[in-house]
Amino acid sequence: MDRPFIYLDNAATSFPKPEAVLKAVDHALRVVGGSPGRSGHRLAINADKIIFEARENICRLLGIADSSRLIFTSGATESLNLAIKGILESGDHVVISSMEHSSVTRPLHSLSQKAVEVTKVKCDKKGLLAPDDITKAIKKNTRLIVLTHASNVTGTIQPVCEVGKIARERGITFLVDACQTAGVFPIDLESIPVDMLAASGHKGLLGPQGTGILYIRPGINLSPLKEGGTGRGPSDDKQPEALPDRFEAGTMNTPGIAGLGAAAAFLLEQTVEAVRQKEMLLYKQLLEGLIAIEGVTTYGSSDPGKKVSLLSFNIEGLDPSLVSFRLDEEFDILSRSGLHCAPDAHKTVGTFPEGAVRLSPGFYNIPGDIDKTIAAIHRIAKER
Amino acid sequence: MDRPFIYLDNAATSFPKPEAVLKAVDHALRVVGGSPGRSGHRLAINADKIIFEARENICRLLGIADSSRLIFTSGATESLNLAIKGILESGDHVVISSMEHSSVTRPLHSLSQKAVEVTKVKCDKKGLLAPDDITKAIKKNTRLIVLTHASNVTGTIQPVCEVGKIARERGITFLVDACQTAGVFPIDLESIPVDMLAASGHKGLLGPQGTGILYIRPGINLSPLKEGGTGRGPSDDKQPEALPDRFEAGTMNTPGIAGLGAAAAFLLEQTVEAVRQKEMLLYKQLLEGLIAIEGVTTYGSSDPGKKVSLLSFNIEGLDPSLVSFRLDEEFDILSRSGLHCAPDAHKTVGTFPEGAVRLSPGFYNIPGDIDKTIAAIHRIAKER
Repeated sequence: MDRPFIYLDNAATSFPKPEAVLKAVDHALRVVGGSPGRSGHRLAINADKIIFEARENICRLLGIADSSRLIFTSGATESLNLAIKGILESGDHVVISSMEHSSVTRPLHSLSQKAVEVTKVKCDKKGLLAPDDITKAIKKNTRLIVLTHASNVTGTIQPVCEVGKIARERGITFLVDACQTAGVFPIDLESIPVDMLAASGHKGLLGPQGTGILYIRPGINLSPLKEGGTGRGPSDDKQPEALPDRFEAGTMNTPGIAGLGAAAAFLLEQTVEAVRQKEMLLYKQLLEGLIAIEGVTTYGSSDPGKKVSLLSFNIEGLDPSLVSFRLDEEFDILSRSGLHCAPDAHKTVGTFPEGAVRLSPGFYNIPGDIDKTIAAIHRIAKER
Repeated sequence: MDRPFIYLDNAATSFPKPEAVLKAVDHALRVVGGSPGRSGHRLAINADKIIFEARENICRLLGIADSSRLIFTSGATESLNLAIKGILESGDHVVISSMEHSSVTRPLHSLSQKAVEVTKVKCDKKGLLAPDDITKAIKKNTRLIVLTHASNVTGTIQPVCEVGKIARERGITFLVDACQTAGVFPIDLESIPVDMLAASGHKGLLGPQGTGILYIRPGINLSPLKEGGTGRGPSDDKQPEALPDRFEAGTMNTPGIAGLGAAAAFLLEQTVEAVRQKEMLLYKQLLEGLIAIEGVTTYGSSDPGKKVSLLSFNIEGLDPSLVSFRLDEEFDILSRSGLHCAPDAHKTVGTFPEGAVRLSPGFYNIPGDIDKTIAAIHRIAKER
């Protein structure tokens, strides 16, 4: 379908979605209808099957052997709140980086009022974390390390394996925020030292908004964020212990999960490696185009191997929100300006409080989109 | 559309949905795409509009004057967890009825481990609460009363106005679980003494699964269940104070909320009064048919004025799950057997632990469905 605009805001939410995702959502609503795990009739059983298949698909995509450890949530914010609040107790210490999203820093701020101690490890101006700085920040009571896999401001991919090793050697739980990597960067949870991994369903995973996931490695015990009906399980007031039910109280988002499952199937077919290759070509094209424009500053690593497909920039002397507005109004190019719900990251790269303009090419962008975008930014920069 | 079955499980999730709901979900996914409140571009603004309109529609439906007090959640379980955990602190006392769903009793069980004291007020064998018993249960430290508007096991409508008055006179917060009434029984929050009201979006409200609402009256201050990005608000680690953002961290379920908004528009057009009248005719037909069958016991009030459209029953000597299975397999009638995530309610009416068979006619059922259902149950009862 031809659209009258160029969508470069895939880091906020991917658009468009594969047709199979839309069809799966409609099918779940129109034909399946039942509530999964709630009744024994055919529609409820069909809904159960949809959830089961979606879970299996996501697990194949992320290299998760035991699919009962993959929890469906309403989004990455819920996944991160569940992981963080489910494990930390008064007196615990947590180490995070200075590139974390507010879905990490805000729950931690709330816990800091209940005697949880937070250390933010500063990253360099490119947004990159030095694993040694994590080691230095660890204390006797460090219970958790939280690290974004790739920053939503700079796109910088963090050394999660190195940090995971540091955590594992010390028996500290390691939580990774994979919002900007799941679906667009290969992740194999069988082989990397990550204890919990949270992601949105609606970004690189190409599913609908209102979906998210949390992987919980065996041996990690969390308190639930929400208790309630699970359909199955004991008939008393205690939340069941068995996963995934323990963390999936209430009627599930069957249409959303149906869409997410179809999206995962689509990605399995395309392969994440091919998606990454495609996006990296677009990203390199964009980066090369932008750094050649006078007055443009780009943020984050200049090594595409250490980046996901998002690029934040500013034009000297222009307010980023004005640049973003002009891109939309005059050039039909959709970007996101501001602080991207990650003020610490902007402080780290030196763009606080005005922020930057973020461009995030996705699966459905083509090189022509990038050409037009570079030309538009060139014109805005020239007209200053 | 002609379906090869009769769906009588609307109390679990309503089916089918109005065509306008399916269209709104598809439109949100296919055309709107943006993330509400996240970016300034046209798609994000269109997503914002969808959320705004859905909020306004629900508020008109429920008589809510200030729409910023209506929070969208992932479902009633989240709404109830947010309301309950957001207000209660160690040392507080809470009064509930013996007809509550596990989305009330399980969060409270979890809080009881943190020194919150819970009193369950026993209802009569029909599932009806005597308001005086609530008065008797109130103590000096009673902070909250939680009551289901209508039981999901018996359909009995509780005296919420009377209990609300008792609560208000004593300055106790009153939370109503309206999962079985919102959309099918008139609710005007401007005129009834209810402080918080939680409901699913996918039952009587006819929206998609994965949606729910919580109304919070001005003056009620809750701690959020989830903190994180809100798009708007201060650029620091504190969750914003302003509603609804305070309780809507993370990317919203735009397609789900779009569907819920369309469903609310549909109900506003149909009017809840007309929906109630229609469902009550089906319910009376079902009740009269079932009580005439030898060996059938029905539960709950026999006064249709005190009921929503759901009826639980058992056939003497037959296991309810077998009855439900036979209804599906032999008669293409979809019901729900078991404990319906409300073991206390089954204890109250005397059907614990085997449970009962629940039939819940909805908006799209017709009298012919009920005739066939009565005939099927008659046959199963006769063949014993």
